[in-house]
Amino acid sequence: MCESKAYLVKDGVEELIMESVDFLKPQGEEILLRSIFGEQTTIKARLLEMDLTGHRIVLETP
Amino acid sequence: MCESKAYLVKDGVEELIMESVDFLKPQGEEILLRSIFGEQTTIKARLLEMDLTGHRIVLETP
Repeated sequence: MCESKAYLVKDGVEELIMESVDFLKPQGEEILLRSIFGEQTTIKARLLEMDLTGHRIVLETP
Repeated sequence: MCESKAYLVKDGVEELIMESVDFLKPQGEEILLRSIFGEQTTIKARLLEMDLTGHRIVLETP
């Protein structure tokens, strides 16, 4: 399985915000995340980096 | 393996720009892509969407 965990960096601390993310789409100032379980959330953040081998998507607050 | 193909949409047409991408990082108006083979490129684009199950990273020109 190729889904990743999504983390949000806030004040220098990484917080896990969603597991098993398989879809991501920036929408204006927000980012839509969707998991393989159909969970969906939109978060005001921008993409910091994505490491598919490490299964990590890292977002940061603007 | 969880790497993805990266495509760039230009004038409505998807062009494959890198295979086996496992790392992506936005850098200002550009996006850094790196493959599992150590190939690396920076492209002036923004992330349109990413589908990990479909192994697709789609970028678009600004």
